[in-house]
Amino acid sequence: MNNKAITPRDVDFAKWYTDIVRAAHLADYSSVKGCIVIEPNGYAIWEKMQEILDKKFKELGHTNCQMPLLIPENLLKKEGELVEGFAPEVAWVTEGGQKKLTEKLCIRPTSETLFCDYYASHIKSYRDLPKLYNQWCNVLRWEKETRPFLRSREFLWQEGHTIHETKEEAINETDQMMGIYNWFHNEILAIPSIRGKKTEKEKFAGAEYTLTNEALMYNGVVLQAGTSHYFGQKFTKAYDVKYANRENKEDYPYQTSWGTTTRMIGGLIMVHSDDYGLVLPPRIAPKQVVIIPIGTSDIVTKVANKCKEELEKNGISSYLDDSDKSPGFKFSEAEVNGIPIRIEIGDRDIANQKIVFVRRDTREKITESLDIEIVSYVQNLLETIQNDMYMRAKKRRDELTFTAHNMQDIENILNTQPGFIHADWCGSQKCEEKIKEIKGCKSRCILENEELIDGKCVCCGKKAKHHVVWGIQY
Amino acid sequence: MNNKAITPRDVDFAKWYTDIVRAAHLADYSSVKGCIVIEPNGYAIWEKMQEILDKKFKELGHTNCQMPLLIPENLLKKEGELVEGFAPEVAWVTEGGQKKLTEKLCIRPTSETLFCDYYASHIKSYRDLPKLYNQWCNVLRWEKETRPFLRSREFLWQEGHTIHETKEEAINETDQMMGIYNWFHNEILAIPSIRGKKTEKEKFAGAEYTLTNEALMYNGVVLQAGTSHYFGQKFTKAYDVKYANRENKEDYPYQTSWGTTTRMIGGLIMVHSDDYGLVLPPRIAPKQVVIIPIGTSDIVTKVANKCKEELEKNGISSYLDDSDKSPGFKFSEAEVNGIPIRIEIGDRDIANQKIVFVRRDTREKITESLDIEIVSYVQNLLETIQNDMYMRAKKRRDELTFTAHNMQDIENILNTQPGFIHADWCGSQKCEEKIKEIKGCKSRCILENEELIDGKCVCCGKKAKHHVVWGIQY
Repeated sequence: MNNKAITPRDVDFAKWYTDIVRAAHLADYSSVKGCIVIEPNGYAIWEKMQEILDKKFKELGHTNCQMPLLIPENLLKKEGELVEGFAPEVAWVTEGGQKKLTEKLCIRPTSETLFCDYYASHIKSYRDLPKLYNQWCNVLRWEKETRPFLRSREFLWQEGHTIHETKEEAINETDQMMGIYNWFHNEILAIPSIRGKKTEKEKFAGAEYTLTNEALMYNGVVLQAGTSHYFGQKFTKAYDVKYANRENKEDYPYQTSWGTTTRMIGGLIMVHSDDYGLVLPPRIAPKQVVIIPIGTSDIVTKVANKCKEELEKNGISSYLDDSDKSPGFKFSEAEVNGIPIRIEIGDRDIANQKIVFVRRDTREKITESLDIEIVSYVQNLLETIQNDMYMRAKKRRDELTFTAHNMQDIENILNTQPGFIHADWCGSQKCEEKIKEIKGCKSRCILENEELIDGKCVCCGKKAKHHVVWGIQY
Repeated sequence: MNNKAITPRDVDFAKWYTDIVRAAHLADYSSVKGCIVIEPNGYAIWEKMQEILDKKFKELGHTNCQMPLLIPENLLKKEGELVEGFAPEVAWVTEGGQKKLTEKLCIRPTSETLFCDYYASHIKSYRDLPKLYNQWCNVLRWEKETRPFLRSREFLWQEGHTIHETKEEAINETDQMMGIYNWFHNEILAIPSIRGKKTEKEKFAGAEYTLTNEALMYNGVVLQAGTSHYFGQKFTKAYDVKYANRENKEDYPYQTSWGTTTRMIGGLIMVHSDDYGLVLPPRIAPKQVVIIPIGTSDIVTKVANKCKEELEKNGISSYLDDSDKSPGFKFSEAEVNGIPIRIEIGDRDIANQKIVFVRRDTREKITESLDIEIVSYVQNLLETIQNDMYMRAKKRRDELTFTAHNMQDIENILNTQPGFIHADWCGSQKCEEKIKEIKGCKSRCILENEELIDGKCVCCGKKAKHHVVWGIQY
């Protein structure tokens, strides 16, 4: 009964995932190893993500700009930890205009260096602060193992880079932007996510600390979904970004950066989709409703057109599939593409004063009276779907959330079913590494609520300092 | 009296241009030779351009997608003319992940090759046609001489790539998209532009023909402003893009591509701006109105806030500058940034029941009664400014439009004042090259109206085949 092009999720999760990517025309492999083509259906989801996040960023005072794609080797090398973290995975341009370059240029893996370089020549006084910049762009990291959306050499993202007069302001910004990602994942993508702090080992190269939003996929594997970094004065010192403070003394400002990427399209698939194809939460679906006329009689055409018109007029993104394909073909196309609501309009139903709605998330068929208030009905149904999808994803996450008190617990859990594993930790990197030896189980984040700590380190048994969520990551 | 940071336009046009770019915070040089940082003020103009064009493209059925940044050398080489045209100016990635690559990858200078590669594996039948794709992205061309916006190694653009069943459809698409660019330049950017066809020598590498939109800058130099290419089956044959046609026979589809870039920000400056800074046409201005309160009395604050609120509610992009800078400083900042209308609200004016409007384009100060219908007044004034700016630019263009009957005419014109030079041409490349010897005067476009041809070739004196507009280009 499922879509023939899609391997059942419970048979082979990885294959199911790539089958969905292909069947819903979200992306395809390209002739460039490790790089994908984002097809119109996939790109439309990214455009919707951009629209929603960009609006929020701007409401909070951020403005967009655009830094160069290329970074000279010397500039990249100025901050030691950053270069250590990224050097192994950059691509180098060594020839341009038919000549060998005197200094090689890397394609940006991230743009802290370029922003610092810019800030260094533009920030003179406290009056120039803060700068709340963001850019939407492509970046490149030479990954060995790649997977569409989840990990590809080139990906699209936004990177916010802000610079502030005080430590407090920068800390607040780091926190605020993590709040935005958390809101975006929970409220818009219907992905129940938890926020916390990365351990020293897992934080961003060069950051003082990293806040992260972590989401659990259907199979119990964890996806990092948005990070926000506090840099303190690390980069401003390395790149000599100085300003005259209110006492007219030279000082170094404080920085943050924060980003989220096209990998979240992968997250949407792995949390919500099923064996019939993509399932999209209404708030992120580029098309929320598809209207499929059954037959071509005047009355069917008239009702279908009126329906589309009213929905569109009220801000519900909908389209009428009046192509010459069969209704069955259209149903399955709308299904595999994840359109939240399908409306079927046929002669027989009209004769009986009926109209049919089909929910994509539950595949439930609902017959209503033809004289229903269509706009408010659809609005409510979209909200119901959004909430139900969130609640289902939350239920799944809660079912796959475990507590471990010792190493054997972790092993038992991972041998049965991976998920979020809550366990206290002493804070030593040695214990963290030992835990990782169990099937690559990594610290995902330290929960910032200290009241959760109630005992001993899951590894060494010494007094715990942190309550940590662990898991296997994508 | 002019802005001190800006060299007068009539003293040194090139310096005036870069002074405006810097003073209005549109862009800055970066540490990467030939690449710029697009600063928030410049990027906001690009966002507005994107918003307007993207809406049009989508209304005409186009969808966005995203191809990879990198092109393998072998793929680039498949179409002979394209590679000849672009090979001298590409940048090559030769190392990735700390290893030398077995095949070098170029950073896309344009993406025909990638689209063809994608189409080859996705188009099987006439049912898969047309594909009307577009992408917004960065491209790189290793230019020797660079200038902010006008010519930089990396730039942002959109590139439309469509593929059709019939020649006619593709020709119509080429024409339609040229129409969009022409509309965009005339109606939105207030830049009076002429459309025509490139000569064989000047067409896009690999195209059957190229349509172009050409605009005259204040100094009489010409800027190419959007091109639309008809490829016929040239690329589909080179990249083996085949499909089963309606007779179920194998055939090659027909292609187009069309693009416009961030260089149009440079065009806006060079057509409209003055010695006081940037001047933006209201339809492309990210901020259309600035409200500057003079003083901080309750009544001033109240009136200023109410004014902003009403304008915003009615879709007029406006902001209130209530920072602690002096009114004079704010006036000159708004002026250099090119905000079309400045509204001044002060105690004395309010006491006299007055409100002051200042037009950026004419710098005219208009005092109106405080009880004016502010929304419709501002709407009308914005339209007036838009039209006046267009008419002024058109007047300037017409003044700098000349006719030449022989080579001496061209020389005389260019020795006095460059501009659009209308002259008939026999069609031979030899004559075209001879004309270019006069100060680099190039054919800009063949006007598609044959009735304009009325005589002999400006160079050889033989019977003319085309009426051509010539000029010196950026």
